[in-house]
Amino acid sequence: MRNSPKRPWDGIVPESEQALYKAAGLGGRGGLGKRAALLVIDVQYRSMGESPKPIAESMKEYGTSCGEHGWRAVPGIVRLISAFRARGLPVIYPYVAPKGLHHRGSFTAKMPGLLTVPPRGYEFVREVAPQPDDLLVPKVHASAFFGTPLASNLVNMGVDSLVITGCTTSGCVRGTAVDANAYNYKVVVAEDCVYDRSQVSHAVNLFDIAHKYADVVTADEAIAMQEGLQ
Amino acid sequence: MRNSPKRPWDGIVPESEQALYKAAGLGGRGGLGKRAALLVIDVQYRSMGESPKPIAESMKEYGTSCGEHGWRAVPGIVRLISAFRARGLPVIYPYVAPKGLHHRGSFTAKMPGLLTVPPRGYEFVREVAPQPDDLLVPKVHASAFFGTPLASNLVNMGVDSLVITGCTTSGCVRGTAVDANAYNYKVVVAEDCVYDRSQVSHAVNLFDIAHKYADVVTADEAIAMQEGLQ
Amino acid sequence: MRNSPKRPWDGIVPESEQALYKAAGLGGRGGLGKRAALLVIDVQYRSMGESPKPIAESMKEYGTSCGEHGWRAVPGIVRLISAFRARGLPVIYPYVAPKGLHHRGSFTAKMPGLLTVPPRGYEFVREVAPQPDDLLVPKVHASAFFGTPLASNLVNMGVDSLVITGCTTSGCVRGTAVDANAYNYKVVVAEDCVYDRSQVSHAVNLFDIAHKYADVVTADEAIAMQEGLQ
Amino acid sequence: MRNSPKRPWDGIVPESEQALYKAAGLGGRGGLGKRAALLVIDVQYRSMGESPKPIAESMKEYGTSCGEHGWRAVPGIVRLISAFRARGLPVIYPYVAPKGLHHRGSFTAKMPGLLTVPPRGYEFVREVAPQPDDLLVPKVHASAFFGTPLASNLVNMGVDSLVITGCTTSGCVRGTAVDANAYNYKVVVAEDCVYDRSQVSHAVNLFDIAHKYADVVTADEAIAMQEGLQ
Repeated sequence: MRNSPKRPWDGIVPESEQALYKAAGLGGRGGLGKRAALLVIDVQYRSMGESPKPIAESMKEYGTSCGEHGWRAVPGIVRLISAFRARGLPVIYPYVAPKGLHHRGSFTAKMPGLLTVPPRGYEFVREVAPQPDDLLVPKVHASAFFGTPLASNLVNMGVDSLVITGCTTSGCVRGTAVDANAYNYKVVVAEDCVYDRSQVSHAVNLFDIAHKYADVVTADEAIAMQEGLQ
Repeated sequence: MRNSPKRPWDGIVPESEQALYKAAGLGGRGGLGKRAALLVIDVQYRSMGESPKPIAESMKEYGTSCGEHGWRAVPGIVRLISAFRARGLPVIYPYVAPKGLHHRGSFTAKMPGLLTVPPRGYEFVREVAPQPDDLLVPKVHASAFFGTPLASNLVNMGVDSLVITGCTTSGCVRGTAVDANAYNYKVVVAEDCVYDRSQVSHAVNLFDIAHKYADVVTADEAIAMQEGLQ
Repeated sequence: MRNSPKRPWDGIVPESEQALYKAAGLGGRGGLGKRAALLVIDVQYRSMGESPKPIAESMKEYGTSCGEHGWRAVPGIVRLISAFRARGLPVIYPYVAPKGLHHRGSFTAKMPGLLTVPPRGYEFVREVAPQPDDLLVPKVHASAFFGTPLASNLVNMGVDSLVITGCTTSGCVRGTAVDANAYNYKVVVAEDCVYDRSQVSHAVNLFDIAHKYADVVTADEAIAMQEGLQ
Repeated sequence: MRNSPKRPWDGIVPESEQALYKAAGLGGRGGLGKRAALLVIDVQYRSMGESPKPIAESMKEYGTSCGEHGWRAVPGIVRLISAFRARGLPVIYPYVAPKGLHHRGSFTAKMPGLLTVPPRGYEFVREVAPQPDDLLVPKVHASAFFGTPLASNLVNMGVDSLVITGCTTSGCVRGTAVDANAYNYKVVVAEDCVYDRSQVSHAVNLFDIAHKYADVVTADEAIAMQEGLQ
């Protein structure tokens, strides 16, 4: 199925280690089922700034920004949203709820930078913002499933598969992929639609995800899978 | 607190990216609370083979083995177990339950190699095996919390903190650390007591964990933290 | 749909109160979806004794027994199991796991009688016992979902509906029905296949369940619903 | 400990059945631990109307109202809130989130009346309304734990016990008590601070809760327990 042999983690995870994973029987193909939902996770201005800039520059706007890494993901997410809407499939928006007094726990102890984002940062990036009937899932922790009714919503929607986009690859995307797989949903992560601060961590997280929790493919491959062309 | 400036991910995650994380306010110090439990995750022969060998060699015994990477973690785990027992603190063993018919879901679709481990592989490694009164937590998925009553056990034990050891760093250790942090437990991962197949993935997962979910320290540092010496 | 106007709670919940529930818009019809699984909950000898006897007599065998109330439920459960197996639908057995040291928590503090059941009591009642390929779900608490991977199993099985049988009506049956409804499964409780110690509590719990969480019908009605005849 | 021998379920659950529960070893005393939080569940105008009226009358304001049954619970809740605030203990408000498109699932199929409450009905009853620093827990289902981060909040707050007030006894109060017990919190339900539509269902649910999931005492007894006087 894979046309291009080049994977995001090539050159970072050594070939010898990739070979060990293959020999261990990791990295099987999961595929999609009969009905998928699209998750657009945390694509709020806090994660990419108001316009595409190098990350160090963008972090002056929002300390939590991934800068231009985030903006590069927008066109693929736009295509996926469009493809899902065209087929009447659910588009779901897990998002970072603004932090209050009761969020000062272990999560923010490790990431105090999360506590200082101004209100504008919590708004959805306009290009991929939800429509009135879309499901919004405010969340406090990394995974879109943790402490939310998302698992119930998915049963209600009758979906058996999820396509994941958004940020960060090593945080909420990975946490959500791990939980979605544990719930036995078929999971696809769109590699050109997820983003992070560190490009090494981004690539290695895609490697981990691809070998354990989800198929990692491009937005266009995900659209093709969803259309049953693959 | 950190004596040695050398971290497991140095040389793998570039300094420039590490600087971005620091500037973003990630990597805060979480510490331990008043009462910790020790988790020994998946230290079964399936994860390290019957004796220390290079991983490729060890995988001939068990396809899921991390080989000598696992055996190197044993002495630190032994010291931690001993320290916890000496203070009457709980030692908990989440472990991989043998796979049956109903485990053929999304999890094993991505990791078909998990389905072919012989029964001996599920036995605990003798050096760190549970004692009769220890809590065993059979699990089907990565996180020791997912689909198990572990959260209830921790409330019952009156603990507010967890020290995590075992394998794999990028799988069950990370999944457990992410969930433990989401439940607001204070979490420490003992870096010399966790192991994996890929050393790049191992290091980058420790980097991710250290900056988002748990303090990453050595076994001896964890013992010192637990004794309130730090 | 209801042929017989007589409901299990008639004569216990006053008509005036039943009228209030109706006026409040409670007690809607949920129905079944496209694919149901059958849950046989805790039908172990500990819950009904070795043979049908009045409850006070049967409790001399097992203090947790519901006696002949349990045995009366067996024929309906047998018919439901047979109907589900005939259509290739899943039959799932949540059951009470034998109690150990780590079960001495809030649950057993309220119910110390749970701690003294001999091993034979944990065996499945022969007439409705699982077959080798059935899913077993050991559980520590009331709901079959709490601290178990049942939610994941249901996604894997592709079911959207549950038919619930077993015991006790006011304990594990109700807890499971509440959670199943919260997960957005369509739920049916077979009123002649669930049982309890107190007949008042049994009836009122069926009233609560029928108005809030599940359709409450007879085994034969459930079979007819499942066959799409209703 | 019990001064008054009269229990809310006397005259509804026959003495012979109460004797069976006692003989079965149900109804143990759980007590409180070292640090409790108070839960005020769903005390919104939708549950009692704007002023005390007979339930049938009050339901003309809000179809979901319990009328004067609710208003009778207010003084005890006020006293409990005051006692908890005086000792610096957490007061937590799980509440019914206004219903939207995505709440049309199994829960509301059984209770279509939940879908037509006007916005004013979701406001907190003034006498017991939250203060700015109190934790609010919006919820979609019955239990305050289901699909919410409440379990994480409790760990963060360092509590080991919960005192439950609010409504309805047979719905969200019971669902929350069952889950709190399953998480191994010590649970107390204040019998004069919880309310429901049906007085039979109210009483039998208190019976069930008292014998399986929580101590059922008056507000004043709960305050005394919390002050360590009992």
